[in-house]
Amino acid sequence: MTDKFQQLADKIDAALLTGDNTAIATILAEIASAEIARLLESLPPKERLSVWAQVAPKRCAKVLLALPQPQRRALIHHTDKAKLIAGLSQMQMDELADIDADLPMPVVSAMVQAMDSQRRQRYELVRDYPDQSAGGLMDVDISALRADVSIKAALRYLRRLRQREGQLPEHLDSLMVVDRNNTLVGIIPLSLLVSSEMDTSISELMSTEITSFTPEMSASKVAQVFKDKDLLSAPVVDAEHKLIGRITVDDVIDVIQDEADKALYSQAGLNNHPDLFAPIVRSASRRALWLGINLLTAFLAAWVIGLFEAAIEKVVALAVLMPVVASMGGVAGSQTLTMVTRGLALDQINRNNIIKLIGHEFGIGALNALLWASLVAFIALKWFGDWQLGLVFGLAMVIVLITGVLAGASIPVLLKKIGIDPALAGGVVLTTVTDVVGFFAFLGLATLFIL
Amino acid sequence: MTDKFQQLADKIDAALLTGDNTAIATILAEIASAEIARLLESLPPKERLSVWAQVAPKRCAKVLLALPQPQRRALIHHTDKAKLIAGLSQMQMDELADIDADLPMPVVSAMVQAMDSQRRQRYELVRDYPDQSAGGLMDVDISALRADVSIKAALRYLRRLRQREGQLPEHLDSLMVVDRNNTLVGIIPLSLLVSSEMDTSISELMSTEITSFTPEMSASKVAQVFKDKDLLSAPVVDAEHKLIGRITVDDVIDVIQDEADKALYSQAGLNNHPDLFAPIVRSASRRALWLGINLLTAFLAAWVIGLFEAAIEKVVALAVLMPVVASMGGVAGSQTLTMVTRGLALDQINRNNIIKLIGHEFGIGALNALLWASLVAFIALKWFGDWQLGLVFGLAMVIVLITGVLAGASIPVLLKKIGIDPALAGGVVLTTVTDVVGFFAFLGLATLFIL
Repeated sequence: MTDKFQQLADKIDAALLTGDNTAIATILAEIASAEIARLLESLPPKERLSVWAQVAPKRCAKVLLALPQPQRRALIHHTDKAKLIAGLSQMQMDELADIDADLPMPVVSAMVQAMDSQRRQRYELVRDYPDQSAGGLMDVDISALRADVSIKAALRYLRRLRQREGQLPEHLDSLMVVDRNNTLVGIIPLSLLVSSEMDTSISELMSTEITSFTPEMSASKVAQVFKDKDLLSAPVVDAEHKLIGRITVDDVIDVIQDEADKALYSQAGLNNHPDLFAPIVRSASRRALWLGINLLTAFLAAWVIGLFEAAIEKVVALAVLMPVVASMGGVAGSQTLTMVTRGLALDQINRNNIIKLIGHEFGIGALNALLWASLVAFIALKWFGDWQLGLVFGLAMVIVLITGVLAGASIPVLLKKIGIDPALAGGVVLTTVTDVVGFFAFLGLATLFIL
Repeated sequence: MTDKFQQLADKIDAALLTGDNTAIATILAEIASAEIARLLESLPPKERLSVWAQVAPKRCAKVLLALPQPQRRALIHHTDKAKLIAGLSQMQMDELADIDADLPMPVVSAMVQAMDSQRRQRYELVRDYPDQSAGGLMDVDISALRADVSIKAALRYLRRLRQREGQLPEHLDSLMVVDRNNTLVGIIPLSLLVSSEMDTSISELMSTEITSFTPEMSASKVAQVFKDKDLLSAPVVDAEHKLIGRITVDDVIDVIQDEADKALYSQAGLNNHPDLFAPIVRSASRRALWLGINLLTAFLAAWVIGLFEAAIEKVVALAVLMPVVASMGGVAGSQTLTMVTRGLALDQINRNNIIKLIGHEFGIGALNALLWASLVAFIALKWFGDWQLGLVFGLAMVIVLITGVLAGASIPVLLKKIGIDPALAGGVVLTTVTDVVGFFAFLGLATLFIL
């Protein structure tokens, strides 16, 4: 951990021990909302609530937004309704729409009733888009220019807008340009606005090659385009190309980080952003599902071994060596699996190269198979003094290593084809295949050649 | 894969088949440089070179920058020096510094010689910082304002700057404010510049609470701060707080994505961004290392089994069931391992909560241990009709599941303490522990109670 966070944790811990709420409030006032969120996540339930109580009301909204959903829900559940309403009243409409599902109904109603008609309209516009869509990501507090005005007039408009609204939208790097029907016609970066002659018209400066999104597009697709084109912000338009919102890169970063986390967690059958200190029974039951699935596949492998009880009874060395075969197949396969799963997510694997890729992986698997098969055959020979055992061990290793890479390459493609997330299920299916093939090959070959 | 990329791949494939280079060039002209890079990565070596030859010289730089290093090196190796020099001559200095290590020496020398003295100075400033540092990320083409000028004067300055340089720096959302010694004194967002009265002075508008970085700071730390504070750009200053560069969020996104990819790949012992079509011998030898490490741990587990040959000879059912014990321990442990490894990376696990966390995990492990131990004991009893075997199987399951979660929680913390990346080594160490403990507990208990 970095020193800064360790110091922070130490200070909070000391303040919690002495019950010094003022000290906690002072510490929190000095760090960013996202840091408060990370700090809260690191605390056990009781301490988490004590610290949360010291978050200044005006910062509650940003902290709640920065928390993963389960942790956010738990905090909201323990927060006084009046404090929630006070803390959330300054929220932007798109932010409110992101967390309204986690708020108690009376709080949401109270907030909606307190809105002026413009804000209510904006809120109702974004509310119904799913979080993981362009519509869910977008901000509706947008300020657009007309193409036929001069820079001078545009600056005058922006001054008035800021006076009226108190501030311009956050993270403003460019302005959208629309016609009188609110149809998007261009984008002008602020850097051009501040470095051009005052009498230039917006239409001369604006870029008309616009990357825009429709509200239904998936957040993941939006993130890929932001990365590919190095965007800071981009407009969201409806089917008639009318401007309805703006997506900024800070929200896109959250999408990128979330997707990466999800890929990591789902490999272990965890839900995204597991709460370190979720109630034990809840955590245990969530993890039990994954353990249950793996138990099934383990018993499948055990059943394969059971078919060869007679062989093991005669040559106990088979029992000693068989886990080596299965585990090497799993490791070889998981390397290919990881690469192919990621390649699929990056659109780098498609029907045009999958056959070549499987051939390429076969080559890699075959080379490693020869190397390790010779080595393990030699070890088995030296260990048990039985050249037949060594031969069977080596042969099984060849079979399982090649099976591993072929399965690793094809399983994610097949899973994706039938609509199952390869990052979630790939590992389990792969292990099942390599275990079953590994045990079957080794014990089967032994039955044929040794007994 | 998305339809768009599949269509792209189909079109490129068709053009490659007919050798229609004009068609390839036309397709490439319509997509972003990062998309060209992803397309190149998806192609086998021969096809990759054919498509690369059709990339317009002026886009070579951006495409090379968007490629992972090994793939970039391979392409550069196959590219004519004159084309490289022509393609890279318009590169920004910080971009050149990112890839100069991959370029042939004569190309770098030719480019340095062609630079004017200002550009050469800038290049030499960034060249020596490692890629994964704030210095390596920063852009040195910066334009700063003085605090005592009015907005009107600032805009005049920016107009002249753009006339002189052709354009303002990319991704400009704010301007740095410095004093006459180039010491950073403030930051002013462009949105304030375009929405304030012309006679306001910069000092009235600028923010003096600045998040800045020193060039030595790690890129990973920079990325965390960008995420925590939702920054679009931030200044880099030297020890005397003099302004030396600017980091923009588009480069930070690359860092975030790279770190996430690294966490994923390193679990499988792969280098970051493995080339799908790297030469077979090279790929095989890279993967061999990981297989070798895993072979060692597998033989360690085999040696444990070997200690109990006599037990297995008498009760073959032990051989059938023992992989189930080891595999369940591994699965339970990997859930905790994944969560704790990620928690460490997020600074959410520290000396203040690690003991509580281990206690919490113990609770989760114990609950699941009771559940699954009873179930597997019952299954073993029904399968082999031996209640002693069922009892031993259940007991071993309790031991290995609890060992799994405890090891999963403590291994990453210990690895980090001794300076080893938990994401890389955690899985191997965990599997070794759960295999050895699982086999030892099951076969050892059996020796005590059954024989």
